[in-house]
Amino acid sequence: MSELERFGVSIPDDLLNKFDKIISNKGYSNRSEAIRDLIRDNIVEQSIAEDGEVAGTITLVYDHHQRDLADKLMDIQHDFYKNIISTTHIHMDHHNCLEVLVVKGKSKKVNEIGNKLMSTKGVKHGKLVMTSTGKELK
Amino acid sequence: MSELERFGVSIPDDLLNKFDKIISNKGYSNRSEAIRDLIRDNIVEQSIAEDGEVAGTITLVYDHHQRDLADKLMDIQHDFYKNIISTTHIHMDHHNCLEVLVVKGKSKKVNEIGNKLMSTKGVKHGKLVMTSTGKELK
Amino acid sequence: MSELERFGVSIPDDLLNKFDKIISNKGYSNRSEAIRDLIRDNIVEQSIAEDGEVAGTITLVYDHHQRDLADKLMDIQHDFYKNIISTTHIHMDHHNCLEVLVVKGKSKKVNEIGNKLMSTKGVKHGKLVMTSTGKELK
Amino acid sequence: MSELERFGVSIPDDLLNKFDKIISNKGYSNRSEAIRDLIRDNIVEQSIAEDGEVAGTITLVYDHHQRDLADKLMDIQHDFYKNIISTTHIHMDHHNCLEVLVVKGKSKKVNEIGNKLMSTKGVKHGKLVMTSTGKELK
Repeated sequence: MSELERFGVSIPDDLLNKFDKIISNKGYSNRSEAIRDLIRDNIVEQSIAEDGEVAGTITLVYDHHQRDLADKLMDIQHDFYKNIISTTHIHMDHHNCLEVLVVKGKSKKVNEIGNKLMSTKGVKHGKLVMTSTGKELK
Repeated sequence: MSELERFGVSIPDDLLNKFDKIISNKGYSNRSEAIRDLIRDNIVEQSIAEDGEVAGTITLVYDHHQRDLADKLMDIQHDFYKNIISTTHIHMDHHNCLEVLVVKGKSKKVNEIGNKLMSTKGVKHGKLVMTSTGKELK
Repeated sequence: MSELERFGVSIPDDLLNKFDKIISNKGYSNRSEAIRDLIRDNIVEQSIAEDGEVAGTITLVYDHHQRDLADKLMDIQHDFYKNIISTTHIHMDHHNCLEVLVVKGKSKKVNEIGNKLMSTKGVKHGKLVMTSTGKELK
Repeated sequence: MSELERFGVSIPDDLLNKFDKIISNKGYSNRSEAIRDLIRDNIVEQSIAEDGEVAGTITLVYDHHQRDLADKLMDIQHDFYKNIISTTHIHMDHHNCLEVLVVKGKSKKVNEIGNKLMSTKGVKHGKLVMTSTGKELK
Protein backbone atom coordinates (compact mmCIF):
# COMPACT_ATOMS: atom_id res chain seq x y z
CA MET A 1 0.00 0.00 0.00
CA SER A 2 1.42 3.38 -0.93
CA GLU A 3 1.49 6.24 1.53
CA LEU A 4 0.63 9.83 0.81
CA GLU A 5 3.52 12.28 0.77
CA ARG A 6 3.38 16.04 0.61
CA PHE A 7 5.86 18.46 -0.90
CA GLY A 8 5.85 22.20 -1.51
CA VAL A 9 6.25 24.08 -4.77
CA SER A 10 7.27 27.73 -4.77
CA ILE A 11 6.30 29.67 -7.84
CA PRO A 12 5.79 33.31 -8.93
CA ASP A 13 2.18 34.37 -8.33
CA ASP A 14 1.40 35.46 -11.91
CA LEU A 15 2.61 32.11 -13.25
CA LEU A 16 0.34 30.39 -10.76
CA ASN A 17 -2.63 32.56 -11.74
CA LYS A 18 -2.22 31.58 -15.39
CA PHE A 19 -1.97 27.91 -14.50
CA ASP A 20 -5.06 28.12 -12.29
CA LYS A 21 -7.06 29.57 -15.17
CA ILE A 22 -5.96 26.81 -17.56
CA ILE A 23 -6.74 23.93 -15.22
CA SER A 24 -10.09 25.39 -14.20
CA ASN A 25 -11.00 25.51 -17.90
CA LYS A 26 -10.03 21.86 -18.20
CA GLY A 27 -12.34 21.03 -15.32
CA TYR A 28 -9.88 20.42 -12.47
CA SER A 29 -11.34 21.25 -9.08
CA ASN A 30 -7.98 21.04 -7.43
CA ARG A 31 -4.42 22.20 -8.12
CA SER A 32 -2.86 19.14 -6.51
CA GLU A 33 -4.82 16.82 -8.83
CA ALA A 34 -3.64 18.76 -11.89
CA ILE A 35 -0.02 18.43 -10.80
CA ARG A 36 -0.42 14.71 -10.14
CA ASP A 37 -1.73 14.34 -13.70
CA LEU A 38 1.30 16.12 -15.14
CA ILE A 39 3.52 13.79 -13.13
CA ARG A 40 1.61 10.69 -14.26
CA ASP A 41 1.96 11.81 -17.90
CA ASN A 42 5.72 11.90 -17.40
CA ILE A 43 5.81 8.43 -15.89
CA VAL A 44 3.67 6.92 -18.66
CA GLU A 45 5.84 8.48 -21.37
CA GLN A 46 8.95 7.11 -19.70
CA SER A 47 7.42 3.66 -19.52
CA ILE A 48 6.51 3.74 -23.23
CA ALA A 49 10.04 4.84 -24.15
CA GLU A 50 11.57 1.99 -22.11
CA ASP A 51 9.41 -0.73 -23.73
CA GLY A 52 7.49 -1.21 -20.51
CA GLU A 53 4.10 -2.89 -20.11
CA VAL A 54 1.40 -0.60 -21.47
CA ALA A 55 -2.26 -0.61 -22.36
CA GLY A 56 -3.19 0.80 -25.73
CA THR A 57 -6.16 1.54 -27.90
CA ILE A 58 -6.05 1.19 -31.66
CA THR A 59 -8.74 3.05 -33.57
CA LEU A 60 -9.48 2.00 -37.15
CA VAL A 61 -11.85 3.57 -39.67
CA TYR A 62 -12.75 1.55 -42.73
CA ASP A 63 -15.45 0.79 -45.27
CA HIS A 64 -16.99 -2.59 -44.52
CA HIS A 65 -18.10 -2.96 -48.14
CA GLN A 66 -14.54 -3.98 -48.89
CA ARG A 67 -15.46 -7.38 -47.54
CA ASP A 68 -12.04 -8.98 -47.73
CA LEU A 69 -10.82 -6.21 -45.51
CA ALA A 70 -12.93 -7.23 -42.51
CA ASP A 71 -11.65 -10.80 -42.89
CA LYS A 72 -8.08 -9.64 -43.16
CA LEU A 73 -8.35 -7.45 -40.06
CA MET A 74 -9.90 -10.37 -38.20
CA ASP A 75 -7.01 -12.64 -39.24
CA ILE A 76 -4.39 -10.18 -38.07
CA GLN A 77 -6.19 -9.71 -34.77
CA HIS A 78 -6.19 -13.46 -34.16
CA ASP A 79 -2.43 -13.56 -34.71
CA PHE A 80 -2.18 -11.31 -31.68
CA TYR A 81 -5.10 -12.62 -29.64
CA LYS A 82 -2.95 -12.77 -26.51
CA ASN A 83 -2.47 -9.02 -26.61
CA ILE A 84 -5.92 -7.95 -27.75
CA ILE A 85 -8.34 -7.73 -24.86
CA SER A 86 -11.45 -6.51 -26.62
CA THR A 87 -12.76 -5.02 -29.83
CA THR A 88 -15.67 -2.60 -30.11
CA HIS A 89 -17.28 -2.08 -33.47
CA ILE A 90 -19.39 0.99 -34.33
CA HIS A 91 -21.45 1.37 -37.49
CA MET A 92 -20.78 5.01 -38.27
CA ASP A 93 -22.96 5.18 -41.36
CA HIS A 94 -23.97 2.96 -44.26
CA HIS A 95 -20.35 2.55 -45.38
CA ASN A 96 -18.04 3.45 -42.54
CA CYS A 97 -17.04 1.39 -39.54
CA LEU A 98 -15.03 2.46 -36.57
CA GLU A 99 -13.29 -0.27 -34.63
CA VAL A 100 -11.53 0.25 -31.31
CA LEU A 101 -9.21 -2.43 -29.97
CA VAL A 102 -7.95 -2.47 -26.43
CA VAL A 103 -4.50 -4.03 -26.35
CA LYS A 104 -1.97 -4.81 -23.65
CA GLY A 105 1.71 -5.70 -23.78
CA LYS A 106 5.23 -4.32 -24.16
CA SER A 107 5.12 -0.97 -25.95
CA LYS A 108 7.05 -2.32 -28.96
CA LYS A 109 4.60 -5.19 -29.42
CA VAL A 110 1.61 -2.85 -29.10
CA ASN A 111 3.25 -0.63 -31.71
CA GLU A 112 3.75 -3.59 -34.04
CA ILE A 113 0.09 -4.60 -33.81
CA GLY A 114 -1.03 -1.04 -34.46
CA ASN A 115 1.23 -0.70 -37.51
CA LYS A 116 0.07 -3.97 -38.98
CA LEU A 117 -3.61 -3.11 -38.71
CA MET A 118 -3.32 0.55 -39.73
CA SER A 119 -1.22 -0.30 -42.80
CA THR A 120 -3.73 -2.83 -44.14
CA LYS A 121 -4.97 -1.78 -47.56
CA GLY A 122 -8.46 -0.29 -47.29
CA VAL A 123 -8.15 1.03 -43.73
CA LYS A 124 -8.94 4.71 -44.21
CA HIS A 125 -7.41 5.97 -41.03
CA GLY A 126 -5.91 4.58 -37.90
CA LYS A 127 -4.49 5.86 -34.66
CA LEU A 128 -2.68 4.18 -31.83
CA VAL A 129 -2.51 5.61 -28.34
CA MET A 130 -0.68 4.14 -25.37
CA THR A 131 -1.38 4.61 -21.70
CA SER A 132 -0.68 2.85 -18.46
CA THR A 133 -2.04 -0.49 -17.31
CA GLY A 134 -2.67 1.31 -14.06
CA LYS A 135 -0.30 -0.83 -12.03
CA GLU A 136 2.56 1.65 -11.97
CA LEU A 137 0.29 4.62 -11.26
CA LYS A 138 -0.72 4.37 -7.64
CA MET B 1 -19.20 8.03 -56.14
CA SER B 2 -15.59 9.04 -56.26
CA GLU B 3 -13.39 8.16 -59.22
CA LEU B 4 -9.83 6.97 -59.05
CA GLU B 5 -7.19 9.39 -60.23
CA ARG B 6 -3.52 8.75 -60.81
CA PHE B 7 -0.60 11.12 -60.46
CA GLY B 8 3.15 10.68 -60.69
CA VAL B 9 5.78 11.47 -58.08
CA SER B 10 9.40 11.95 -59.10
CA ILE B 11 11.91 11.38 -56.34
CA PRO B 12 15.64 10.58 -55.96
CA ASP B 13 16.19 6.82 -55.88
CA ASP B 14 18.03 6.66 -52.54
CA LEU B 15 15.20 8.59 -50.87
CA LEU B 16 12.73 6.12 -52.33
CA ASN B 17 14.80 3.13 -51.15
CA LYS B 18 14.74 4.45 -47.58
CA PHE B 19 11.01 5.04 -47.71
CA ASP B 20 10.39 1.55 -49.11
CA LYS B 21 12.30 0.03 -46.19
CA ILE B 22 10.30 1.98 -43.62
CA ILE B 23 6.88 1.15 -45.05
CA SER B 24 7.74 -2.52 -45.53
CA ASN B 25 8.66 -2.62 -41.82
CA LYS B 26 5.29 -1.10 -41.02
CA GLY B 27 3.58 -3.81 -43.03
CA TYR B 28 2.54 -1.95 -46.18
CA SER B 29 2.41 -4.17 -49.23
CA ASN B 30 2.12 -1.26 -51.55
CA ARG B 31 3.73 2.16 -51.99
CA SER B 32 0.54 3.75 -53.23
CA GLU B 33 -1.33 2.71 -50.08
CA ALA B 34 1.38 4.20 -47.86
CA ILE B 35 1.16 7.51 -49.71
CA ARG B 36 -2.64 7.53 -49.44
CA ASP B 37 -2.27 7.07 -45.68
CA LEU B 38 0.08 10.05 -45.41
CA ILE B 39 -2.44 12.10 -47.36
CA ARG B 40 -5.35 10.96 -45.18
CA ASP B 41 -3.38 11.89 -42.05
CA ASN B 42 -3.05 15.41 -43.43
CA ILE B 43 -6.76 15.67 -44.15
CA VAL B 44 -7.77 14.42 -40.71
CA GLU B 45 -5.41 16.86 -38.97
CA GLN B 46 -6.82 19.71 -41.00
CA SER B 47 -10.36 18.70 -40.10
CA ILE B 48 -9.49 18.59 -36.38
CA ALA B 49 -7.87 22.03 -36.58
CA GLU B 50 -10.96 23.50 -38.27
CA ASP B 51 -13.41 22.16 -35.66
CA GLY B 52 -14.84 19.68 -38.16
CA GLU B 53 -16.86 16.56 -37.37
CA VAL B 54 -14.58 13.91 -35.91
CA ALA B 55 -14.71 10.56 -34.19
CA GLY B 56 -12.63 10.17 -31.07
CA THR B 57 -11.68 7.65 -28.46
CA ILE B 58 -11.12 8.60 -24.86
CA THR B 59 -9.12 6.12 -22.79
CA LEU B 60 -9.35 6.32 -19.00
CA VAL B 61 -7.44 4.32 -16.38
CA TYR B 62 -8.78 4.39 -12.82
CA ASP B 63 -9.15 2.42 -9.62
CA HIS B 64 -12.75 1.27 -9.26
CA HIS B 65 -12.34 1.02 -5.49
CA GLN B 66 -12.80 4.75 -5.43
CA ARG B 67 -16.50 4.06 -5.77
CA ASP B 68 -17.71 7.66 -6.05
CA LEU B 69 -15.42 7.97 -9.03
CA ALA B 70 -17.31 5.44 -11.17
CA ASP B 71 -20.56 7.26 -10.36
CA LYS B 72 -19.05 10.60 -11.19
CA LEU B 73 -17.68 9.38 -14.52
CA MET B 74 -21.11 7.92 -15.32
CA ASP B 75 -22.78 11.25 -14.52
CA ILE B 76 -20.44 13.19 -16.78
CA GLN B 77 -20.93 10.69 -19.58
CA HIS B 78 -24.70 11.10 -19.38
CA ASP B 79 -24.32 14.87 -19.71
CA PHE B 80 -22.83 14.15 -23.13
CA TYR B 81 -24.87 11.08 -24.10
CA LYS B 82 -25.55 12.53 -27.55
CA ASN B 83 -21.84 12.48 -28.35
CA ILE B 84 -20.86 9.22 -26.67
CA ILE B 85 -21.58 6.25 -28.88
CA SER B 86 -20.27 3.43 -26.72
CA THR B 87 -18.18 2.60 -23.70
CA THR B 88 -16.05 -0.49 -23.24
CA HIS B 89 -14.90 -1.42 -19.78
CA ILE B 90 -11.94 -3.69 -19.11
CA HIS B 91 -11.01 -5.10 -15.71
CA MET B 92 -7.21 -4.81 -15.89
CA ASP B 93 -6.54 -6.29 -12.48
CA HIS B 94 -8.08 -6.34 -9.01
CA HIS B 95 -7.88 -2.55 -8.73
CA ASN B 96 -7.46 -1.04 -12.16
CA CYS B 97 -10.09 -0.41 -14.82
CA LEU B 98 -9.57 0.75 -18.34
CA GLU B 99 -12.50 2.42 -20.01
CA VAL B 100 -12.62 3.35 -23.68
CA LEU B 101 -15.31 5.70 -24.94
CA VAL B 102 -16.08 6.18 -28.60
CA VAL B 103 -17.28 9.74 -29.15
CA LYS B 104 -18.43 11.73 -32.17
CA GLY B 105 -18.92 15.44 -32.73
CA LYS B 106 -17.16 18.71 -33.50
CA SER B 107 -13.52 18.49 -32.48
CA LYS B 108 -13.93 21.19 -29.80
CA LYS B 109 -16.83 19.35 -28.18
CA VAL B 110 -14.92 16.06 -28.26
CA ASN B 111 -11.99 17.87 -26.65
CA GLU B 112 -14.25 19.26 -23.92
CA ILE B 113 -15.63 15.82 -23.07
CA GLY B 114 -12.14 14.37 -22.93
CA ASN B 115 -10.86 17.14 -20.66
CA LYS B 116 -13.81 16.81 -18.29
CA LEU B 117 -13.37 13.06 -17.85
CA MET B 118 -9.58 13.04 -17.72
CA SER B 119 -9.47 15.82 -15.12
CA THR B 120 -11.82 14.04 -12.73
CA LYS B 121 -10.11 13.41 -9.40
CA GLY B 122 -9.07 9.77 -9.16
CA VAL B 123 -8.60 9.13 -12.87
CA LYS B 124 -5.00 7.91 -13.00
CA HIS B 125 -4.39 8.55 -16.64
CA GLY B 126 -6.35 9.55 -19.68
CA LYS B 127 -5.73 10.07 -23.35
CA LEU B 128 -7.87 11.45 -26.12
CA VAL B 129 -7.30 10.68 -29.76
CA MET B 130 -9.26 12.03 -32.71
CA THR B 131 -9.74 10.53 -36.11
CA SER B 132 -12.16 10.77 -39.00
CA THR B 133 -15.80 9.70 -39.06
CA GLY B 134 -14.86 8.15 -42.38
CA LYS B 135 -17.20 10.33 -44.42
CA GLU B 136 -14.54 12.70 -45.66
CA LEU B 137 -12.07 9.92 -46.43
CA LYS B 138 -13.26 8.22 -49.58
CA MET C 1 7.15 42.57 -9.79
CA SER C 2 5.78 39.10 -9.15
CA GLU C 3 5.81 37.61 -5.70
CA LEU C 4 6.69 34.06 -4.84
CA GLU C 5 3.81 31.86 -3.71
CA ARG C 6 3.97 28.40 -2.23
CA PHE C 7 1.48 25.59 -2.48
CA GLY C 8 1.52 21.96 -1.40
CA VAL C 9 1.04 18.84 -3.50
CA SER C 10 0.02 15.56 -1.88
CA ILE C 11 0.91 12.47 -3.83
CA PRO C 12 1.42 8.72 -3.24
CA ASP C 13 5.04 8.00 -2.35
CA ASP C 14 5.73 5.47 -5.10
CA LEU C 15 4.47 7.92 -7.72
CA LEU C 16 6.79 10.53 -6.31
CA ASN C 17 9.76 8.13 -6.31
CA LYS C 18 9.24 7.44 -10.01
CA PHE C 19 8.98 11.13 -10.81
CA ASP C 20 12.14 11.88 -8.82
CA LYS C 21 14.06 9.31 -10.85
CA ILE C 22 12.89 10.75 -14.16
CA ILE C 23 13.71 14.36 -13.32
CA SER C 24 17.10 13.47 -11.88
CA ASN C 25 17.92 11.75 -15.19
CA LYS C 26 16.90 14.90 -17.00
CA GLY C 27 19.28 16.90 -14.85
CA TYR C 28 16.90 18.71 -12.48
CA SER C 29 18.46 19.42 -9.11
CA ASN C 30 15.16 20.36 -7.62
CA ARG C 31 11.58 19.05 -7.62
CA SER C 32 10.06 22.51 -7.48
CA GLU C 33 11.92 23.56 -10.63
CA ALA C 34 10.68 20.49 -12.51
CA ILE C 35 7.08 21.27 -11.54
CA ARG C 36 7.48 24.91 -12.60
CA ASP C 37 8.68 23.70 -16.00
CA LEU C 38 5.64 21.47 -16.44
CA ILE C 39 3.45 24.47 -15.56
CA ARG C 40 5.30 26.75 -17.99
CA ASP C 41 4.86 24.17 -20.76
CA ASN C 42 1.11 24.32 -20.17
CA ILE C 43 1.06 28.11 -20.32
CA VAL C 44 3.08 28.25 -23.53
CA GLU C 45 0.86 25.67 -25.25
CA GLN C 46 -2.21 27.64 -24.25
CA SER C 47 -0.71 30.83 -25.63
CA ILE C 48 0.10 29.13 -28.95
CA ALA C 49 -3.44 27.75 -29.21
CA GLU C 50 -4.94 31.20 -28.58
CA ASP C 51 -2.84 32.93 -31.27
CA GLY C 52 -0.84 34.77 -28.63
CA GLU C 53 2.55 36.44 -29.09
CA VAL C 54 5.24 33.77 -29.42
CA ALA C 55 8.88 33.35 -30.32
CA GLY C 56 9.70 30.60 -32.75
CA THR C 57 12.63 28.97 -34.47
CA ILE C 58 12.42 27.66 -38.01
CA THR C 59 15.07 25.13 -39.00
CA LEU C 60 15.70 24.50 -42.70
CA VAL C 61 17.99 21.96 -44.35
CA TYR C 62 18.80 22.46 -48.02
CA ASP C 63 21.41 22.01 -50.71
CA HIS C 64 22.95 25.38 -51.55
CA HIS C 65 23.93 24.11 -55.02
CA GLN C 66 20.36 24.73 -56.03
CA ARG C 67 21.29 28.37 -56.32
CA ASP C 68 17.85 29.75 -57.11
CA LEU C 69 16.71 28.24 -53.87
CA ALA C 70 18.90 30.44 -51.67
CA ASP C 71 17.60 33.50 -53.52
CA LYS C 72 14.03 32.37 -53.15
CA LEU C 73 14.42 31.74 -49.42
CA MET C 74 15.99 35.18 -49.07
CA ASP C 75 13.07 36.78 -50.91
CA ILE C 76 10.49 35.10 -48.70
CA GLN C 77 12.39 36.11 -45.57
CA HIS C 78 12.37 39.73 -46.66
CA ASP C 79 8.60 39.60 -47.10
CA PHE C 80 8.46 38.90 -43.39
CA TYR C 81 11.42 40.96 -42.20
CA LYS C 82 9.37 42.48 -39.39
CA ASN C 83 8.90 39.06 -37.83
CA ILE C 84 12.33 37.58 -38.48
CA ILE C 85 14.83 38.64 -35.86
CA SER C 86 17.88 36.76 -37.01
CA THR C 87 19.13 34.00 -39.27
CA THR C 88 22.05 31.69 -38.56
CA HIS C 89 23.56 29.76 -41.40
CA ILE C 90 25.66 26.61 -40.91
CA HIS C 91 27.63 24.87 -43.65
CA MET C 92 26.97 21.25 -42.74
CA ASP C 93 29.06 19.73 -45.51
CA HIS C 94 29.98 20.46 -49.11
CA HIS C 95 26.33 20.36 -50.18
CA ASN C 96 24.11 20.80 -47.17
CA CYS C 97 23.18 23.98 -45.34
CA LEU C 98 21.25 24.32 -42.13
CA GLU C 99 19.57 27.64 -41.53
CA VAL C 100 17.90 28.62 -38.27
CA LEU C 101 15.59 31.63 -38.17
CA VAL C 102 14.44 33.22 -34.95
CA VAL C 103 10.96 34.68 -35.47
CA LYS C 104 8.51 36.57 -33.31
CA GLY C 105 4.81 37.33 -33.71
CA LYS C 106 1.32 35.94 -33.34
CA SER C 107 1.40 32.16 -33.50
CA LYS C 108 -0.63 32.07 -36.74
CA LYS C 109 1.77 34.44 -38.47
CA VAL C 110 4.79 32.45 -37.26
CA ASN C 111 3.09 29.32 -38.57
CA GLU C 112 2.51 30.97 -41.96
CA ILE C 113 6.17 31.97 -42.29
CA GLY C 114 7.29 28.47 -41.36
CA ASN C 115 4.95 26.83 -43.88
CA LYS C 116 6.05 29.15 -46.67
CA LEU C 117 9.74 28.45 -46.16
CA MET C 118 9.45 24.73 -45.48
CA SER C 119 7.27 24.16 -48.56
CA THR C 120 9.73 25.83 -50.93
CA LYS C 121 10.88 23.38 -53.58
CA GLY C 122 14.36 22.15 -52.78
CA VAL C 123 14.17 22.51 -49.00
CA LYS C 124 14.99 18.99 -47.84
CA HIS C 125 13.55 19.26 -44.40
CA GLY C 126 12.11 21.89 -42.14
CA LYS C 127 10.79 22.15 -38.63
CA LEU C 128 9.06 24.91 -36.76
CA VAL C 129 8.99 25.13 -33.00
CA MET C 130 7.23 27.75 -30.91
CA THR C 131 8.03 28.94 -27.44
CA SER C 132 7.41 31.96 -25.26
CA THR C 133 8.79 35.46 -25.73
CA GLY C 134 9.51 35.25 -22.03
CA LYS C 135 7.19 38.07 -21.06
CA GLU C 136 4.36 35.90 -19.86
CA LEU C 137 6.68 33.53 -17.98
CA LYS C 138 7.79 35.29 -14.87
CA MET D 1 24.97 10.84 -57.40
CA SER D 2 21.34 9.81 -56.97
CA GLU D 3 19.06 9.31 -59.94
CA LEU D 4 15.49 10.47 -60.21
CA GLU D 5 12.83 7.78 -60.15
CA ARG D 6 9.16 8.13 -60.87
CA PHE D 7 6.25 6.17 -59.45
CA GLY D 8 2.48 6.51 -59.72
CA VAL D 9 -0.07 6.94 -56.95
CA SER D 10 -3.72 6.09 -57.55
CA ILE D 11 -6.15 7.83 -55.27
CA PRO D 12 -9.88 8.73 -55.17
CA ASP D 13 -10.46 12.16 -56.73
CA ASP D 14 -12.19 13.77 -53.74
CA LEU D 15 -9.32 12.74 -51.47
CA LEU D 16 -6.90 14.30 -53.92
CA ASN D 17 -8.93 17.52 -54.11
CA LYS D 18 -8.79 17.90 -50.34
CA PHE D 19 -5.05 17.29 -50.29
CA ASP D 20 -4.50 19.80 -53.08
CA LYS D 21 -6.33 22.47 -51.08
CA ILE D 22 -4.25 21.81 -47.97
CA ILE D 23 -0.89 21.91 -49.72
CA SER D 24 -1.78 25.02 -51.73
CA ASN D 25 -2.59 26.74 -48.41
CA LYS D 26 0.80 25.70 -47.11
CA GLY D 27 2.45 27.25 -50.16
CA TYR D 28 3.40 24.19 -52.20
CA SER D 29 3.42 24.88 -55.92
CA ASN D 30 3.69 21.24 -56.73
CA ARG D 31 2.07 17.96 -55.60
CA SER D 32 5.25 15.96 -56.09
CA GLU D 33 7.19 18.27 -53.78
CA ALA D 34 4.55 17.91 -51.05
CA ILE D 35 4.76 14.11 -51.28
CA ARG D 36 8.56 14.19 -51.13
CA ASP D 37 8.29 16.25 -47.94
CA LEU D 38 5.97 13.71 -46.34
CA ILE D 39 8.46 10.99 -47.26
CA ARG D 40 11.41 12.96 -45.90
CA ASP D 41 9.53 13.49 -42.61
CA ASN D 42 9.19 9.73 -42.31
CA ILE D 43 12.87 9.16 -42.95
CA VAL D 44 13.97 11.78 -40.43
CA GLU D 45 11.67 10.36 -37.73
CA GLN D 46 13.06 6.90 -38.36
CA SER D 47 16.61 8.18 -38.08
CA ILE D 48 15.83 9.91 -34.77
CA ALA D 49 14.23 6.74 -33.40
CA GLU D 50 17.28 4.66 -34.36
CA ASP D 51 19.79 6.99 -32.67
CA GLY D 52 21.14 8.11 -36.04
CA GLU D 53 23.17 11.25 -36.76
CA VAL D 54 20.90 14.29 -36.54
CA ALA D 55 21.06 18.06 -36.46
CA GLY D 56 19.06 19.78 -33.77
CA THR D 57 18.18 23.21 -32.48
CA ILE D 58 17.71 23.93 -28.81
CA THR D 59 15.75 27.07 -27.97
CA LEU D 60 16.08 28.54 -24.48
CA VAL D 61 14.24 31.49 -22.94
CA TYR D 62 15.66 32.96 -19.77
CA ASP D 63 16.12 36.13 -17.74
CA HIS D 64 19.71 37.31 -18.01
CA HIS D 65 19.42 39.18 -14.69
CA GLN D 66 19.90 35.85 -13.03
CA ARG D 67 23.57 36.29 -13.71
CA ASP D 68 24.77 32.93 -12.45
CA LEU D 69 22.44 31.37 -14.94
CA ALA D 70 24.27 32.69 -18.03
CA ASP D 71 27.54 31.37 -16.60
CA LYS D 72 26.02 28.02 -15.85
CA LEU D 73 24.56 27.69 -19.34
CA MET D 74 27.95 28.62 -20.78
CA ASP D 75 29.67 25.96 -18.67
CA ILE D 76 27.27 23.24 -19.79
CA GLN D 77 27.68 24.28 -23.41
CA HIS D 78 31.44 23.97 -23.14
CA ASP D 79 31.07 20.43 -21.79
CA PHE D 80 29.49 19.62 -25.14
CA TYR D 81 31.49 21.93 -27.40
CA LYS D 82 32.09 19.12 -29.88
CA ASN D 83 28.36 18.85 -30.55
CA ILE D 84 27.41 22.51 -30.42
CA ILE D 85 28.05 24.22 -33.74
CA SER D 86 26.77 27.70 -32.99
CA THR D 87 24.76 29.76 -30.55
CA THR D 88 22.63 32.78 -31.44
CA HIS D 89 21.58 35.12 -28.69
CA ILE D 90 18.61 37.49 -29.01
CA HIS D 91 17.78 40.25 -26.52
CA MET D 92 13.99 39.93 -26.47
CA ASP D 93 13.39 42.76 -24.01
CA HIS D 94 15.02 44.29 -20.97
CA HIS D 95 14.85 41.01 -19.07
CA ASN D 96 14.35 38.18 -21.48
CA CYS D 97 16.90 36.41 -23.66
CA LEU D 98 16.29 33.82 -26.30
CA GLU D 99 19.20 31.58 -27.17
CA VAL D 100 19.22 29.15 -30.08
CA LEU D 101 21.89 26.46 -30.25
CA VAL D 102 22.56 24.44 -33.36
CA VAL D 103 23.76 20.98 -32.35
CA LYS D 104 24.85 17.89 -34.21
CA GLY D 105 25.33 14.29 -33.12
CA LYS D 106 23.59 11.01 -32.35
CA SER D 107 19.96 11.67 -31.41
CA LYS D 108 20.48 10.41 -27.84
CA LYS D 109 23.40 12.76 -27.26
CA VAL D 110 21.46 15.70 -28.72
CA ASN D 111 18.60 14.80 -26.41
CA GLU D 112 20.94 14.71 -23.41
CA ILE D 113 22.32 18.18 -24.17
CA GLY D 114 18.80 19.57 -24.59
CA ASN D 115 17.63 18.08 -21.29
CA LYS D 116 20.63 19.38 -19.40
CA LEU D 117 20.17 22.94 -20.62
CA MET D 118 16.39 23.06 -20.41
CA SER D 119 16.36 21.68 -16.87
CA THR D 120 18.77 24.30 -15.54
CA LYS D 121 17.14 26.34 -12.79
CA GLY D 122 16.08 29.71 -14.11
CA VAL D 123 15.53 28.69 -17.72
CA LYS D 124 11.91 29.74 -18.27
CA HIS D 125 11.21 27.58 -21.25
CA GLY D 126 13.09 25.35 -23.61
CA LYS D 127 12.38 23.29 -26.68
CA LEU D 128 14.45 20.83 -28.63
CA VAL D 129 13.76 19.92 -32.22
CA MET D 130 15.65 17.40 -34.33
CA THR D 131 16.04 17.28 -38.07
CA SER D 132 18.38 15.78 -40.61
CA THR D 133 21.99 16.70 -41.23
CA GLY D 134 20.97 16.66 -44.88
CA LYS D 135 23.27 13.81 -45.83
CA GLU D 136 20.61 11.13 -45.85
CA LEU D 137 18.08 13.30 -47.67
CA LYS D 138 19.14 13.44 -51.28
